[in-house]
Amino acid sequence: MPLVGVLVGSASDKETVQHTMDTLAQFGVEAELTVASAHRNPDAVRAYVEEAPARGVEVFIAAAGGAAALPGVVASLTTLPVIGVPLASSELRGEDALYSIVQMPPGIPVATVAIGSWGARNAAILATQILALKYGSLREALDAHRRRLRER
Amino acid sequence: MPLVGVLVGSASDKETVQHTMDTLAQFGVEAELTVASAHRNPDAVRAYVEEAPARGVEVFIAAAGGAAALPGVVASLTTLPVIGVPLASSELRGEDALYSIVQMPPGIPVATVAIGSWGARNAAILATQILALKYGSLREALDAHRRRLRER
Amino acid sequence: MPLVGVLVGSASDKETVQHTMDTLAQFGVEAELTVASAHRNPDAVRAYVEEAPARGVEVFIAAAGGAAALPGVVASLTTLPVIGVPLASSELRGEDALYSIVQMPPGIPVATVAIGSWGARNAAILATQILALKYGSLREALDAHRRRLRER
Amino acid sequence: MPLVGVLVGSASDKETVQHTMDTLAQFGVEAELTVASAHRNPDAVRAYVEEAPARGVEVFIAAAGGAAALPGVVASLTTLPVIGVPLASSELRGEDALYSIVQMPPGIPVATVAIGSWGARNAAILATQILALKYGSLREALDAHRRRLRER
Amino acid sequence: MPLVGVLVGSASDKETVQHTMDTLAQFGVEAELTVASAHRNPDAVRAYVEEAPARGVEVFIAAAGGAAALPGVVASLTTLPVIGVPLASSELRGEDALYSIVQMPPGIPVATVAIGSWGARNAAILATQILALKYGSLREALDAHRRRLRER
Amino acid sequence: MPLVGVLVGSASDKETVQHTMDTLAQFGVEAELTVASAHRNPDAVRAYVEEAPARGVEVFIAAAGGAAALPGVVASLTTLPVIGVPLASSELRGEDALYSIVQMPPGIPVATVAIGSWGARNAAILATQILALKYGSLREALDAHRRRLRER
Amino acid sequence: MPLVGVLVGSASDKETVQHTMDTLAQFGVEAELTVASAHRNPDAVRAYVEEAPARGVEVFIAAAGGAAALPGVVASLTTLPVIGVPLASSELRGEDALYSIVQMPPGIPVATVAIGSWGARNAAILATQILALKYGSLREALDAHRRRLRER
Amino acid sequence: MPLVGVLVGSASDKETVQHTMDTLAQFGVEAELTVASAHRNPDAVRAYVEEAPARGVEVFIAAAGGAAALPGVVASLTTLPVIGVPLASSELRGEDALYSIVQMPPGIPVATVAIGSWGARNAAILATQILALKYGSLREALDAHRRRLRER
Repeated sequence: MPLVGVLVGSASDKETVQHTMDTLAQFGVEAELTVASAHRNPDAVRAYVEEAPARGVEVFIAAAGGAAALPGVVASLTTLPVIGVPLASSELRGEDALYSIVQMPPGIPVATVAIGSWGARNAAILATQILALKYGSLREALDAHRRRLRER
Repeated sequence: MPLVGVLVGSASDKETVQHTMDTLAQFGVEAELTVASAHRNPDAVRAYVEEAPARGVEVFIAAAGGAAALPGVVASLTTLPVIGVPLASSELRGEDALYSIVQMPPGIPVATVAIGSWGARNAAILATQILALKYGSLREALDAHRRRLRER
Repeated sequence: MPLVGVLVGSASDKETVQHTMDTLAQFGVEAELTVASAHRNPDAVRAYVEEAPARGVEVFIAAAGGAAALPGVVASLTTLPVIGVPLASSELRGEDALYSIVQMPPGIPVATVAIGSWGARNAAILATQILALKYGSLREALDAHRRRLRER
Repeated sequence: MPLVGVLVGSASDKETVQHTMDTLAQFGVEAELTVASAHRNPDAVRAYVEEAPARGVEVFIAAAGGAAALPGVVASLTTLPVIGVPLASSELRGEDALYSIVQMPPGIPVATVAIGSWGARNAAILATQILALKYGSLREALDAHRRRLRER
Repeated sequence: MPLVGVLVGSASDKETVQHTMDTLAQFGVEAELTVASAHRNPDAVRAYVEEAPARGVEVFIAAAGGAAALPGVVASLTTLPVIGVPLASSELRGEDALYSIVQMPPGIPVATVAIGSWGARNAAILATQILALKYGSLREALDAHRRRLRER
Repeated sequence: MPLVGVLVGSASDKETVQHTMDTLAQFGVEAELTVASAHRNPDAVRAYVEEAPARGVEVFIAAAGGAAALPGVVASLTTLPVIGVPLASSELRGEDALYSIVQMPPGIPVATVAIGSWGARNAAILATQILALKYGSLREALDAHRRRLRER
Repeated sequence: MPLVGVLVGSASDKETVQHTMDTLAQFGVEAELTVASAHRNPDAVRAYVEEAPARGVEVFIAAAGGAAALPGVVASLTTLPVIGVPLASSELRGEDALYSIVQMPPGIPVATVAIGSWGARNAAILATQILALKYGSLREALDAHRRRLRER
Repeated sequence: MPLVGVLVGSASDKETVQHTMDTLAQFGVEAELTVASAHRNPDAVRAYVEEAPARGVEVFIAAAGGAAALPGVVASLTTLPVIGVPLASSELRGEDALYSIVQMPPGIPVATVAIGSWGARNAAILATQILALKYGSLREALDAHRRRLRER
């Protein structure tokens, strides 16, 4: 049963988001990856966001480049936490995606992380930190991870 | 019967978009103004975009600031032309809105104009230019407007 | 008989704009491609814009990099809709071209799309959306294209 | 017993962060506000972050301007979720704070929201969304808030 | 007989360009000021540039804001030196005008100076420096001006 | 006898500036190229600028990257026209050099051209346009060049 | 006997730099303030930098806006430490001055601090930290200052 | 006995910082290089900064990319001079690191140098300039270095 629903706007974004999936797996957090564009297929995004909670999803991660509407659109359809990952897929190298994701108007937040692979990994850790409020065993996994970072 | 459907994400954006309404009126193009946020009320946006064509709307204009998803969301719901106006309502003074509107991924274009009141006026002229392909009398209005610009 | 007149400022820009030509061809929209620089050969631009409507052109697409004056210059010479594509050909990677195209003063709009190949493709779709107001058969082609985007 | 620990780097930042406190209060989420600069008083930040969980804090919100190290420093000292609010207090109007907060290296995420008062309000909502995973009654408050946004 | 032809795109730009006129007058360089927009009235710009040399103009100064095409358009119509002054009249505060003026493609240069009133004054000095190659008496005026700057 | 004195701050900048030398040669304008850094060897810059006029130099071209002080330093030492070429040699790809060259304070202008090889070529043309005020035969060379640009 | 020589490029910059003078006075560090523009009066800058060490100056602080060459020019004339303060006096609000000061080429460093009044104050503290290596009593003043920051 | 303590946030930053170590060695300044991340291992940073002075360290150099907190965190823990080197390791190519390092709030300065290898080398020279206040023999090494720069 997936706790995290990961969305990307384009199949070409899957390579970067694989960092998210791998990091979630390291924490033992089950997740599912879906390709659905907010602009090309808004119905698929809506259907996914509406149905995912019934499958167990409690946190969304959405990654997109350019005019990166996907994270905000997901956030407009749910009150679960939404994490946004800006991707450097356009000529503006992610500055456009960062602004499109982080500058959300009052009322509908998106938890934004760094551009590209740094953010893809941190989105997974942030999702785990959020889930650890409810699932205490994840706290131990996070503490162990932090210790490993220190020992490296 | 309105030919142009104008959308703003927030009531506070109406002041700038009044330039759009006034300019359309000068060209004798009927238009309607609706406040509906892509993030706070996606269902209202969807309902508006789906129902407007039946009322006569053939071109959409959407204005928004910050992570300005509204124009792109409108464009995702229709194949009519969508004009986007970036507004300078956030601390980043419209650079965020410009990137959020213009950097649309391949497949779903938004015709983007200048930030703020310059763009609000030009959106109306661009809509009139588009409509003039079908409604020949608008061509004369556009030519007269151009002559006035030259004579000023 | 071409419905769309596509202009590039330099022969080196033809590669990116080939996306525009290919996409228009996919929609069955006839188009013609001309190289004419607003800065190096303003007379050729003027002659082209003045003569193209007689050949059937109803929408212009102009692509340029750097101080990308071409789309605005075309717009200054016609009241037909003009779509501008910023190219990433200078050291500033298209940010200069974007500002030069989108920040048009009130009175003369340019419908601006994304930087580079994303915009080159979307310019063609936007031109088709505009033409579909008049040529109803294009509406079907656009709807079919949208369905294909959803099914991908 | 406060569930959210809100930190600002300077007393002059309290005005913006009052939006955070007010919004949390609207959701019925108890919070405490502390002034402690990561640069001028790192020991106070460390002491606060280490002691707050014992008082009940489960989510941190940190707001700062300029070289806004505070959110990242808080995140380096805890595995609880940390939300960062970039403030527009320097001559660069928050672009510096945004980059300083969002571009965290892999391993230590900060959930970044918009610059200034937009972000101050959204930080409170995001904190509530995170807490709602554990405290079910907050879900109803969030849903009610979302309904109000739609009805406005 | 004017040696310098000063062009602005909009009457609202005349205030800043008054610095140019005043500085030229201080050097005893005769100049004429014309309002003509490259976008709204390209024929007037062309006519001005073609006729000015017969009246004695040997250097052009063109000031514009936003998508500031005017200096480049003037340069496309003459091989006399053209000085461009970017104005901060749009929401982007002159960064757009700077890029639109300075990033000219190879073949057609524009001598660009600083944004706003700094550039308005320096355009006059640069024009005087250029004219001093031919009119030796201006060299003395420039040297006297430089001495005054040092003594201040 | 060189009419144009070309300065670069570093030997590694010579490759880009070769475009300047080649273009000047095409116009039949004699020029000399000197490597002298404003920061590493200010005495050499001063000596060069003071002695060059005696050798016939009437226009300076200075190219530099990063904190590109060279053009402004040359301009501070002469009242002859100084053309500045920003180079993309640092991590900021020329945006730093552009600002360092174009934003000169009132009193000491630098005629700034585009970043990199575009600007290197245009600096030569601008220098020729300036010299043509005095040396009439260059006017013909410029007109011929313009005709070639149009015929390409 | 002044230990710190403070330079500003323009009398209008004195207001911001008064923060530097006041802060140095708080630490009991004697300083002198001189107005001398790198561009308008390079000889005065050179004379000042060459003569100041004989009066006791061991650290320079230089503040400037726009194409802020002053700190780098001072650094080119001495091997004493030079601190640069970017000022927000142009339309670009200090981003130009920051790049002009911090992006020094290898060989000639400038110790750059924040834009505007933040940097003006920190330049004084940094100068005191540098001098404290030699003058041990300043270490105590710095430690006392740090304690006061913590207690605030 | 090391006079300079060099810190990097990540082992992958060691390649750029090798320029710092090599340049310090050329001046005969002993230095030590430590890897310790402000975000992943704040205790190691604190321990290093607290213990280094006892080993002889009088100046710190800290290099980091992205949300580059390391230099500011070091500065928060000492009143010795701290030099910050922004690295271009993220998608934003060092603009994020520059802002994160240079925009320090009043009270805690960081002496910031250029992005990347230029800054890595200049950090070493700046450290030597600072140490030369106390260790007179370094003045000769700096003067010799300056002479070599001039003779190149």
